[in-house]
Amino acid sequence: MPRTSHAILATMLMMATSVAANAAEPIALRDMGSFHVGGRLVEISGKPVKEITFTPGGVPAKVDPNGTYQVEQMYVQYFLPANETGAYPLLLWHGGGLTGVTWETTPDGREGWLNYFLRKGWSVYNSDAVERGRAGWAQYPDIFKGEPVFLTTSNPFERFRIGAGPGSYDPDPAKRKLMPGSLFPAEGYDNFVKQNVPRWTTTDDAIIAAYIAEIDRVGPCILLFHSQAGTFGFKVAQARPDKVKALIAVEPAGVGDPSRADVLKNIPTLFIYGDYIDRDSRWPKIRATGIAFADSIRAAGGSADIVDLPKVGITGNSHMMMMDKNNTEIAALIQNWLESKGLTKKP
Amino acid sequence: MPRTSHAILATMLMMATSVAANAAEPIALRDMGSFHVGGRLVEISGKPVKEITFTPGGVPAKVDPNGTYQVEQMYVQYFLPANETGAYPLLLWHGGGLTGVTWETTPDGREGWLNYFLRKGWSVYNSDAVERGRAGWAQYPDIFKGEPVFLTTSNPFERFRIGAGPGSYDPDPAKRKLMPGSLFPAEGYDNFVKQNVPRWTTTDDAIIAAYIAEIDRVGPCILLFHSQAGTFGFKVAQARPDKVKALIAVEPAGVGDPSRADVLKNIPTLFIYGDYIDRDSRWPKIRATGIAFADSIRAAGGSADIVDLPKVGITGNSHMMMMDKNNTEIAALIQNWLESKGLTKKP
Repeated sequence: MPRTSHAILATMLMMATSVAANAAEPIALRDMGSFHVGGRLVEISGKPVKEITFTPGGVPAKVDPNGTYQVEQMYVQYFLPANETGAYPLLLWHGGGLTGVTWETTPDGREGWLNYFLRKGWSVYNSDAVERGRAGWAQYPDIFKGEPVFLTTSNPFERFRIGAGPGSYDPDPAKRKLMPGSLFPAEGYDNFVKQNVPRWTTTDDAIIAAYIAEIDRVGPCILLFHSQAGTFGFKVAQARPDKVKALIAVEPAGVGDPSRADVLKNIPTLFIYGDYIDRDSRWPKIRATGIAFADSIRAAGGSADIVDLPKVGITGNSHMMMMDKNNTEIAALIQNWLESKGLTKKP
Repeated sequence: MPRTSHAILATMLMMATSVAANAAEPIALRDMGSFHVGGRLVEISGKPVKEITFTPGGVPAKVDPNGTYQVEQMYVQYFLPANETGAYPLLLWHGGGLTGVTWETTPDGREGWLNYFLRKGWSVYNSDAVERGRAGWAQYPDIFKGEPVFLTTSNPFERFRIGAGPGSYDPDPAKRKLMPGSLFPAEGYDNFVKQNVPRWTTTDDAIIAAYIAEIDRVGPCILLFHSQAGTFGFKVAQARPDKVKALIAVEPAGVGDPSRADVLKNIPTLFIYGDYIDRDSRWPKIRATGIAFADSIRAAGGSADIVDLPKVGITGNSHMMMMDKNNTEIAALIQNWLESKGLTKKP
């Protein structure tokens, strides 16, 4: 079986422009809201009581740090369209060191994929994984093991295939060297940096447990996940194969358990990779790992489509393709793939 | 001048039930999205380069912790109604150790004030202050001074006038002792605890700077703020008196600079306090500080209304009144106050 059917993809992409969401129309919601889900309780003991004045000039309060802490929950915000066309809710899972902001307005102020899929009629559940954003984080090293990682302003520029490799970043935006033909909205890069949050490398099990709790609460759903969440999307689908109806892996940095790929055989899966991978020191291997996992799914009788964007004529995409200037073009490709898999409601 | 005109308040409250938002109707948005604003760049030097494997089984990446960090920005999510009736956008500022989740769905799953005011036709800007939620946080003690404060599961129960004082919390929900007649949704308390995030007590200046940046970006606006944000709401209004068109202080834990209260004389201001304050060890003084500040505003020729809810017959409210079972009743009181101040568009 060919890894990518270019004929089918070409058709998808030709459809894309005609079905682009119209940002000028109002968004009609039957409901919107949020919840936290998952987590566990942890006991801390043996620490001295503190007196803390929370507000300057305020009244001091005794705070006893000993006791029970709620940790490792996650945050989910949902938007339910008045006219739902998706057969299942669409869960958006961000990458490492990031939050659900990934899917919102792009750093240069255009509509992100959250709005796109909502306008298309999908119920969208956007979330912050354990340890970041509105999920909160737990004290370390008592509860979270290890230290958090903070990224400099230059790190994502050079690691996310926005800049043309090591040394391409400069504090002066005018002196930054972008990948040739880059579609990342470079004028929004400094805003993008503001979206980055601290991350741990020791919390995967807790993140997976919370994502499973999210699915158990939401019910049958489609997962659209990015980068670090590759590991989470595939592993969670392997834990809840009856509840996951499709997997869309946007440049997954990790995969599931290849020895259990057969568990995913009834779940249509789409992998999408952007441009400049061959120029990068790490991404060829990361992509190869994803393709090997897709092969495992196929070998088990499942369906896995791989879209290597440059191979279908879409060039210029960074690792943050949901923010790139052609972000709606790629969203439309996903929308068309979902329709082709029968995952929209029958009219 | 009487501190509270009970006749006027009674009228407001009688109106309240008739103008309650209808949760069954769709929410029509002309736009929704998010942005980060404010912050500064900080240099870190002299630390060793680390090699970090971000994803188990992934490809290690060199991470140089030396360099420039973006810190102290804040996160703002906005919802713009298709039919706008508010004369200015409404900015919702949460309290300490919390995020914008405060204003979203209540911990027991009812609509929060964000939806309420959006349904009423206000453009709503909900945010996470510097240091929490999607704003991110900075490494300490290098950048943030001091250590973060984490709260046990029992702390908010006893400090936010949900439970009947010290010792009222129990891990078993059935054994928790609520304030008599409490309207806090006790069945959602464990969910509420999941909303709590770490906080610092050393970041006030950075928080204020970012809130000022928010106002400078959004333009003329109304501030609705809670608890810790009392300090921020009043101080930011004193810094930008021409841009702040009304102040709604929900149990402010701190106030502005009393010696500069005259700066607020053209800004209609509403203070709201809940129940059980006289039973608490800290809240009588905190409320007295707020009332004294209101008196300073009045002495300078300004307008400050104080609503002590039990005095107008509304009993049972905790510090988290936006989540209490009568949260729409209090929101309607605010809505009516805004209308009475001419802050809605003329039909």
